[in-house]
Amino acid sequence: MTKDKLKIAIVGSSGYTGGELYRILLHHPGAVITAVTSERSAGKPITDIFPHLRGLTDLVCEPLDPASIAKKAELVFLALPHVTAQEAAFQMHKLGVKVVDLSADYRLADPVLYEKWYEHRHQYPDLLKQAVYGLPELHRERIRKASLIANPGCYPTSAILGLAPAIAKKLIDNATIVVDSKSAVSGAGRSPALAYHFPEANESLMAYKVGAHRHTPEIEQELSLLADGQVTISFTPHLVPMNRGILSTIYAKLSVPADTGKLHAVFQDFYRSETFVRVLPLGQFPNVRNVRGSNFCDIGVHADGRTGRAVIVTAIDNLVKGASGQAVQNMNLMMGFEETAGLKFAGLFP
Amino acid sequence: MTKDKLKIAIVGSSGYTGGELYRILLHHPGAVITAVTSERSAGKPITDIFPHLRGLTDLVCEPLDPASIAKKAELVFLALPHVTAQEAAFQMHKLGVKVVDLSADYRLADPVLYEKWYEHRHQYPDLLKQAVYGLPELHRERIRKASLIANPGCYPTSAILGLAPAIAKKLIDNATIVVDSKSAVSGAGRSPALAYHFPEANESLMAYKVGAHRHTPEIEQELSLLADGQVTISFTPHLVPMNRGILSTIYAKLSVPADTGKLHAVFQDFYRSETFVRVLPLGQFPNVRNVRGSNFCDIGVHADGRTGRAVIVTAIDNLVKGASGQAVQNMNLMMGFEETAGLKFAGLFP
Amino acid sequence: MTKDKLKIAIVGSSGYTGGELYRILLHHPGAVITAVTSERSAGKPITDIFPHLRGLTDLVCEPLDPASIAKKAELVFLALPHVTAQEAAFQMHKLGVKVVDLSADYRLADPVLYEKWYEHRHQYPDLLKQAVYGLPELHRERIRKASLIANPGCYPTSAILGLAPAIAKKLIDNATIVVDSKSAVSGAGRSPALAYHFPEANESLMAYKVGAHRHTPEIEQELSLLADGQVTISFTPHLVPMNRGILSTIYAKLSVPADTGKLHAVFQDFYRSETFVRVLPLGQFPNVRNVRGSNFCDIGVHADGRTGRAVIVTAIDNLVKGASGQAVQNMNLMMGFEETAGLKFAGLFP
Amino acid sequence: MTKDKLKIAIVGSSGYTGGELYRILLHHPGAVITAVTSERSAGKPITDIFPHLRGLTDLVCEPLDPASIAKKAELVFLALPHVTAQEAAFQMHKLGVKVVDLSADYRLADPVLYEKWYEHRHQYPDLLKQAVYGLPELHRERIRKASLIANPGCYPTSAILGLAPAIAKKLIDNATIVVDSKSAVSGAGRSPALAYHFPEANESLMAYKVGAHRHTPEIEQELSLLADGQVTISFTPHLVPMNRGILSTIYAKLSVPADTGKLHAVFQDFYRSETFVRVLPLGQFPNVRNVRGSNFCDIGVHADGRTGRAVIVTAIDNLVKGASGQAVQNMNLMMGFEETAGLKFAGLFP
Repeated sequence: MTKDKLKIAIVGSSGYTGGELYRILLHHPGAVITAVTSERSAGKPITDIFPHLRGLTDLVCEPLDPASIAKKAELVFLALPHVTAQEAAFQMHKLGVKVVDLSADYRLADPVLYEKWYEHRHQYPDLLKQAVYGLPELHRERIRKASLIANPGCYPTSAILGLAPAIAKKLIDNATIVVDSKSAVSGAGRSPALAYHFPEANESLMAYKVGAHRHTPEIEQELSLLADGQVTISFTPHLVPMNRGILSTIYAKLSVPADTGKLHAVFQDFYRSETFVRVLPLGQFPNVRNVRGSNFCDIGVHADGRTGRAVIVTAIDNLVKGASGQAVQNMNLMMGFEETAGLKFAGLFP
Repeated sequence: MTKDKLKIAIVGSSGYTGGELYRILLHHPGAVITAVTSERSAGKPITDIFPHLRGLTDLVCEPLDPASIAKKAELVFLALPHVTAQEAAFQMHKLGVKVVDLSADYRLADPVLYEKWYEHRHQYPDLLKQAVYGLPELHRERIRKASLIANPGCYPTSAILGLAPAIAKKLIDNATIVVDSKSAVSGAGRSPALAYHFPEANESLMAYKVGAHRHTPEIEQELSLLADGQVTISFTPHLVPMNRGILSTIYAKLSVPADTGKLHAVFQDFYRSETFVRVLPLGQFPNVRNVRGSNFCDIGVHADGRTGRAVIVTAIDNLVKGASGQAVQNMNLMMGFEETAGLKFAGLFP
Repeated sequence: MTKDKLKIAIVGSSGYTGGELYRILLHHPGAVITAVTSERSAGKPITDIFPHLRGLTDLVCEPLDPASIAKKAELVFLALPHVTAQEAAFQMHKLGVKVVDLSADYRLADPVLYEKWYEHRHQYPDLLKQAVYGLPELHRERIRKASLIANPGCYPTSAILGLAPAIAKKLIDNATIVVDSKSAVSGAGRSPALAYHFPEANESLMAYKVGAHRHTPEIEQELSLLADGQVTISFTPHLVPMNRGILSTIYAKLSVPADTGKLHAVFQDFYRSETFVRVLPLGQFPNVRNVRGSNFCDIGVHADGRTGRAVIVTAIDNLVKGASGQAVQNMNLMMGFEETAGLKFAGLFP
Repeated sequence: MTKDKLKIAIVGSSGYTGGELYRILLHHPGAVITAVTSERSAGKPITDIFPHLRGLTDLVCEPLDPASIAKKAELVFLALPHVTAQEAAFQMHKLGVKVVDLSADYRLADPVLYEKWYEHRHQYPDLLKQAVYGLPELHRERIRKASLIANPGCYPTSAILGLAPAIAKKLIDNATIVVDSKSAVSGAGRSPALAYHFPEANESLMAYKVGAHRHTPEIEQELSLLADGQVTISFTPHLVPMNRGILSTIYAKLSVPADTGKLHAVFQDFYRSETFVRVLPLGQFPNVRNVRGSNFCDIGVHADGRTGRAVIVTAIDNLVKGASGQAVQNMNLMMGFEETAGLKFAGLFP
């Protein structure tokens, strides 16, 4: 039964995005996981790292050996830290394996920008040119033909999907954009640190990396493409005491008269054929609890007559549409599956 | 494609167990939801009540009219308050519709006991005799042939699965059983009340209904069947600040020499062929986070040489194995599906 | 010992701000609570409503009878809903009792604005003229002489303290101000409702009343006074799953060259002699956990060279500096106590 | 003003119990902190470690040099890991400084038991003989005369206070005691680890160290003293997703006929003159939220006719009555202050 399925590998599988790839892919109708790698847990069953998967898989972690993985898998998901991912993507790609890279290493088309924000020189500028930014709602056709996908960051997904219609339809003044994003703690990864120690992170709320978060140039790159000109934004991430979810509240001066109905109609129209973007009914605003565990991005809009500003609010699950769900959506496109295959499950509420 | 599927209705669908029935049944390979009822929300789309389901269903709530439901559905799930469920079960059953009742109305075989604990006289003692207590791990064969299932309570599921091997194999002194259970707040239902108001329930922890919780006789009924003699237990429920999950810590004097290995082996053997009961490796104890959103019950055991007591810890998701997942498991058995159909999904972690 | 103490009454004492007034005032060196009112709980000990105070007070609730309260108290705190507070303030004031009103009824100097946002005509425009907006950091001298204090709202306190130095020192373009505020759930009050039901509010995050929150005109009133000209802002409140705290992230175009050091120096200077405003060291940003349970407002600032915007982040405990602590600070000023009397306690961490 | 105050030092001040000592002692009417030590943070202001204290203290951490501390302080609180505390207590005691040790090092009177459970040989058995177990409700008079206090563990405080009246008054069968305790995550300390990483500990609930927790012999020691004979108990600790609090649910067979009224009366009588133990009204049970931030221990009792068991529930704040508050209570007794000095503050609710 699994004989004809697409063979895939998950590389660097001990973090939360790795765990989500399992959860989703174990039920994918057309793909089967044939290898998982983890340097630290090599030789151990994946259920040692993710006890919630016990009874659903017998996979055992192996160290990352590109040649060995290439024999077992036609497509590989890289859930590695940046810099490490850069090298792995190059190796796997060279071996003819399709790559969906969940790190930031191939997201910024300009290697100079990469070096500036990530403080490492990009080692594979040629491969970088072949990478496609994996936001299906914007780059669907290019993704279908890609061999290397740079899977978007969680914050950028929430910001770009919220701004794309407004910028593409020239409804806002692109010089006035403020993106105020609030993320669950799983966005910080699975490595313990004092800031994420339960008694410090619970009943806690803060802004961090003000004016300096690495997702900023990624958001600006995509918005600039949409605007056909450089867009510079203010972006402030925050940490909120919950496990999953990003809510982004976006502000920009309207370049047209304020009219929520019209703004809403533009958004509805822009995303009319998108399964995973739900433009909420007029007057409603999203809540992360309604997208938890699902691949949806919910959007609400308001055109404010008092201030002449648009206020756009988006909600995603940072680990699904913001990472692993979107990665599978990209896989589906690359490999000719139905785009929604294995992804149209309901979220978990409450 | 859905033509040959089993047609099912969800009656009383605005609470959390109703929501879980949707989440699970929308993806069931052999069943399709054809009707949903809610008195308060009649005429409204179910996504008004459960916005997380938007984009996945177009169902509209209707008021409960048994005759009308009977035309649309071969099996009905009752997610109603007790007493109300009693009547609905009777009506639907009379019309030849199979019933899985998630309320407590048909769980206690003895109507005198029902009246004592629920303070209402049971109106349908004859139907009560036909009801089967829907814990598949204990009553699988009877469930297959049943037309009315009394779906177990959340606490009883966690307690009975933890005690069944020990009692059946006569490893403990049944007069010494203490069940200390800790539940997430969703166990209290979806009706707002001060005790569940966020600032009161968060950073909060309490015992409640000490010595008086209605799930007590239900647990005792099943344990007594296993013991072939009356079992009386101390049961204390607690409320813990989380959305989902029940952890039950169970104590009893061992009637055999303390030996964790042996105790563990008995549990493993007892549940060897059960998909949804995961006896953890020797020395490991469950955490509700590993069963969240799944139909699993995780169990860990310890035989304490110092005190001569067995300590058994079980974890379930109160809304899945403790309610809606188990209800679907019962449906699968009653209707001849694979028992695990639509239920072998991974939980959501983190 | 309490003979010479100031006698005070708390009117409408069953909500969270009432509870905080107790917590603080029970330990005030110069004041003693002589009466507490609650219509619903008349005749019951206050510890029935607030069991955490058991052992610390024997006060019994009484219904609100202004004449009776006037005999027992020289100053009264009104923790009532708006409209109700309006009348109570008038009655108590007429009887010569000093009033600190924690509702919104006397905050907006312009009764037309009040009617527009609160949808009730103000009944006491003459008394309204005598009311002083109780933000000590801005109106200290007027507060000292006031007989009626309109205690600021929680969001306004966090927004105004964050913007005051920047506007007063003309560092920003007042037409570009965006205030993105995130509040704990206690800010919604103590009345149960579905949105605040634990399983709905936990693991949840949303914007609400987008472009329409009643605290907007209050913020604008105070900023306009500082700017000596009308200031209109975008203000979006959010609900975050925690018990206490407001974090406000404030954006505005700099009207001077971006220089974080200079911006920081202006803030430090502005608040140099303020006990309860802590301008954090350069480069640090506040976290609500560090002000929980205390009367402090923490502030961090950033001048962003890329965008030419100031980003100012403030943190308060919504129930203390955002309500009851500030109310006591106002009482201290009005009654000639040391401004910090009874208020220099450390917050609760973790 | 602080000239005549008792000079105290806090040794090992970077953890949560250290932080609580500050919070409490900064407001103590008769004591002043003159030195704080932290090896890792030597030279840094204590507000770097505890930003919530900013504006309230200028203390700078120093490395632990017993001779130097002895010059500055008459009493020292040791908030050190066990083994380390053992040595520091010895050194400070030798120098004539009174010691309140918050570690476990001097709690077990029997050094053999210490070695068995803590896997280190006790280095100072002579000093151990002089140590007094600092539970004021049981050992008040001995504490007054002590020079070295072994401050009780958090779990033991909650368990012993719940069992003392029942054992002392011979109401229960001491061979049947089960203590099921649930602790907040701050009980695990301030060192980050995967189990306490927010996304792992939130929405999480587990038992741990089943049958093997080090607080077990400490509880048994004190219960055995009360029973005048060896008492052996089953004790299971659990981790609950909240910042503060321990709830212990205690079960034991009644050796007298079940009568909740009588049981309650015995508890009331036993604790009649205790300020910090609040026996709740008949039929009420404690909630940790009502003791959060305070030095109270709340107790509720039930005598169950069905099972013949007593069920006793206690609630404390693990960092206050379970650690630092009790430490100050012990200091008050040792140094001749009013026992409640600096401790009769209300908790923080919500």
